Amino acid sequence: MYQEKWKPDPTSSVPLFQQIFQFIKEKIRHGDWTVGTKLPAQRELAREFGVNRSTVVAALEELKAEGLIEGKYGAGTRVSSQTWQTLSPPPPDWNTYVQQGVHHPNLRTIQEINKAEFYPNTVRLGTGELAPELLPIQQIRELFKHAPQKLDLGYEDPRGNRQLREEIQAHVRQRGILTSTSSILIVSGALQALQLIALGLLARDSTILLERASYLQSVHVFRSAGMKLCGIPLDEQGIMPSALNKLKQLHQAAMLYVNPSFHNPTGIVSGEKRRSEILEVCQQMMLPIVEDDTYADLWLAEPSPAALKAIDTQGLVLYLGSMSKALSAGLRIGWVIGPEPVIERLADIKMQMDYGSSSLSQWVVTQFLSSSLYKQQLTYVREQLRMRREKALEALEHYFEKIATWNIPQGGFYIWLQIKGSVPMRQVFEKALKEGVLINPGYLYDRYDNTHIRLSYAYAAPLELENGLAILAKVIKEFSK
Amino acid sequence: MYQEKWKPDPTSSVPLFQQIFQFIKEKIRHGDWTVGTKLPAQRELAREFGVNRSTVVAALEELKAEGLIEGKYGAGTRVSSQTWQTLSPPPPDWNTYVQQGVHHPNLRTIQEINKAEFYPNTVRLGTGELAPELLPIQQIRELFKHAPQKLDLGYEDPRGNRQLREEIQAHVRQRGILTSTSSILIVSGALQALQLIALGLLARDSTILLERASYLQSVHVFRSAGMKLCGIPLDEQGIMPSALNKLKQLHQAAMLYVNPSFHNPTGIVSGEKRRSEILEVCQQMMLPIVEDDTYADLWLAEPSPAALKAIDTQGLVLYLGSMSKALSAGLRIGWVIGPEPVIERLADIKMQMDYGSSSLSQWVVTQFLSSSLYKQQLTYVREQLRMRREKALEALEHYFEKIATWNIPQGGFYIWLQIKGSVPMRQVFEKALKEGVLINPGYLYDRYDNTHIRLSYAYAAPLELENGLAILAKVIKEFSK
Ligand SMILES: Cc1ncc(COP(=O)(O)O)c(C=O)c1O
Ligand SMILES: Cc1ncc(COP(=O)(O)O)c(C=O)c1O
Repeated sequence: MYQEKWKPDPTSSVPLFQQIFQFIKEKIRHGDWTVGTKLPAQRELAREFGVNRSTVVAALEELKAEGLIEGKYGAGTRVSSQTWQTLSPPPPDWNTYVQQGVHHPNLRTIQEINKAEFYPNTVRLGTGELAPELLPIQQIRELFKHAPQKLDLGYEDPRGNRQLREEIQAHVRQRGILTSTSSILIVSGALQALQLIALGLLARDSTILLERASYLQSVHVFRSAGMKLCGIPLDEQGIMPSALNKLKQLHQAAMLYVNPSFHNPTGIVSGEKRRSEILEVCQQMMLPIVEDDTYADLWLAEPSPAALKAIDTQGLVLYLGSMSKALSAGLRIGWVIGPEPVIERLADIKMQMDYGSSSLSQWVVTQFLSSSLYKQQLTYVREQLRMRREKALEALEHYFEKIATWNIPQGGFYIWLQIKGSVPMRQVFEKALKEGVLINPGYLYDRYDNTHIRLSYAYAAPLELENGLAILAKVIKEFSK
Repeated sequence: MYQEKWKPDPTSSVPLFQQIFQFIKEKIRHGDWTVGTKLPAQRELAREFGVNRSTVVAALEELKAEGLIEGKYGAGTRVSSQTWQTLSPPPPDWNTYVQQGVHHPNLRTIQEINKAEFYPNTVRLGTGELAPELLPIQQIRELFKHAPQKLDLGYEDPRGNRQLREEIQAHVRQRGILTSTSSILIVSGALQALQLIALGLLARDSTILLERASYLQSVHVFRSAGMKLCGIPLDEQGIMPSALNKLKQLHQAAMLYVNPSFHNPTGIVSGEKRRSEILEVCQQMMLPIVEDDTYADLWLAEPSPAALKAIDTQGLVLYLGSMSKALSAGLRIGWVIGPEPVIERLADIKMQMDYGSSSLSQWVVTQFLSSSLYKQQLTYVREQLRMRREKALEALEHYFEKIATWNIPQGGFYIWLQIKGSVPMRQVFEKALKEGVLINPGYLYDRYDNTHIRLSYAYAAPLELENGLAILAKVIKEFSK
């Protein structure tokens, strides 16, 4: 019920507890809260409704008396299975439906993060997106002032807006990639590209190789499609080619997923040599590669080496890019580049999933890429990220010198903080959140990790960042005793 | 390769056929065209490149001589499997990947329609969207002039923009629906809602009941998730409750999908009485309902009866709405309304699929609903649709009186044309397309149908519509002899 807006009316002649009673009864009657739904804690209800806890207790007593809810307070109150005797015939058992679906639920910690991101006054130390003040809102407003009469607002071409694909074709040349518009598919963010690849190209029991510690562990796209993930150890250059070779043989893997530039979560950049080694091993094994180049434009010192896709002469690589990290995540625009039959297949599935990406978003990105706007945004964002990175590193030296080690990222958003010794990371997460600090624990990216935290210097304001890190250091020290 | 833009340069000193040879060689070398890819017909290549067919033939001869392509002309030319001996080591076998994915490809006719919609000068008699000239482009441009400084452009709340959900909560009251913002999920069009339901709520071998002739037959959301579809016969009021009862028992069906207002493709509106009957049967059987109310706002004479969701007191109904049909399909905004645990589950999966819908699109829809803009758009669109419907009916009387029968739709976009006697519908489709007329054959909505065509009066301009229908009548007469 989080973010419910209704509040009882204190000026009404109906007592507050009665109003709350009626409100909840209606929710149950309309099936918004079905049998078995757990009610929020009394504390939470009191805050939501802006009343004392005793008022909430009175309302719950009333609901209990009518047989609408059951259970001991404290242990959790639920909508009673008797409800329908009171109100009407029994409902379908939605809870069973919710549990039997094919797709896995998000990891519990991710669900909690997704919610906590909307709590006010939380310092978000892990959030993988630009702070709102770094987004080019003013520029977007300006753009629309000069929007043409003939904006395309119908269902789009299966591969996405034609002009946008031309701009992307030009854009990826900076990454060394030569391609044609018919080898490009516009998607609603790189995440959707992964979804399409999972559903469109792989058999149910395939194994996917990926970095050990990978963004891909934090989402269930491949697992929900019945696939296994297998992590490859990293050194300071990224994936180790020898391990790659061995694990591919061992698991008969069907695909490699890599994020070689400003890796999420470790910040690693694979050098030119390592890139050719990885490509060579994959060529020998005929192992297709998904190259996630989402952070490519966010280099802080110098651009990363040419993309794997650029040195691939065999159509081995499916290349993913996105506008989420440098321009705006809310636009939901990314792209896949690959062999035409593959792109055609992915486009066909995309048409069956959502009929294409928002035309407005596609138009905005086209305008940014075809003018100097995108370059200007990059210059600005890089400067800001450099500054924020410095602040973060200073705070780390101040608060974490004794208790952790970390990398100095050369691009992207992330510092991969390694706690000395191990801590009960889940408890650290919970305690920090109670103190108003939201972190992304390392186990989201590697199930067996208990020593890392992914920090992001992109989101929290510099001052917040410092305060948040101070609190986090304190929490960690408590637990490492 | 459709919509490739490159053309040889006639002012260059390199002969045209040489330029084309080089161009295609590059495509093969970069893996855009992988081994086994079928080349477009010579005719098509000649048109794309803007050259004579003999020039194309010369280029193909050259490619053949280098061992890059193989096969008899006429029978189809393909990228040769010898290619990689010539150029480099062998590539992964992408064609196998393309075939082994979990998701079904679109129906062949749908794929052809998706492509043909972008051919210039095609009369689109079946297209289920508003003509571009009916979209409120001017109004959207105006909106952005007054966009606030604080546009939300980051990743959004899992359920979608808060303000938009409030507007939708108010909007669906017209359909008799009382709900709360926490029971609403914003999606990228109603199609995505169906995808989320398929992946989030149903076991792999479930059976879904639906109207016999249904939009849902034309997409593979449920089939690709391993589910079966089972059609229920219709009378002039929609689904027949007795058949519903019987088929549910027979198939142990898990869910009913219905589109009771201005049904796609038949135009049927279920009356008040029929709606309660359907709901009652489902209540007795505890069969959850997905109610697709996508065309609700497009009534032409009077609003359809209250939604099933409005008379559902048990949380049996998941309600789907969309902005695609009345406002703009390119925005990709729709919604699902249902019990909170179900909405929470669907929101969680949506976060794993694409991290939410475009913020820009969400903002635009919020502005339309919160002002008088949406109402104005509806008034205008209804007026235009009434006029276009009259034109279509006039043309039908003129050209089809002897060869077909049809309904007079009271809303939505569609006329369900029934040809007297049966025709080889696939051949009619092909022949009509050759003559520049694109239709949606009835078999897209009911596999065994061979007598219907779904016409739409929403897309083609009135004059085009008349010309298109004249051509279609002629084609049908040729085949019914
Ligand atoms: C490595 C990587 N890939 C893909 C994504 C998905 O981004 P989007 O779908 O917004 O493009 C992210 C976002 O966190 C990421 O870090
Ligand atoms: C009955 C019905 N439902 C759903 C859709 C999907 O619409 P959208 O995803 O654009 O909201 C359509 C579009 O043709 C439709 O006709």
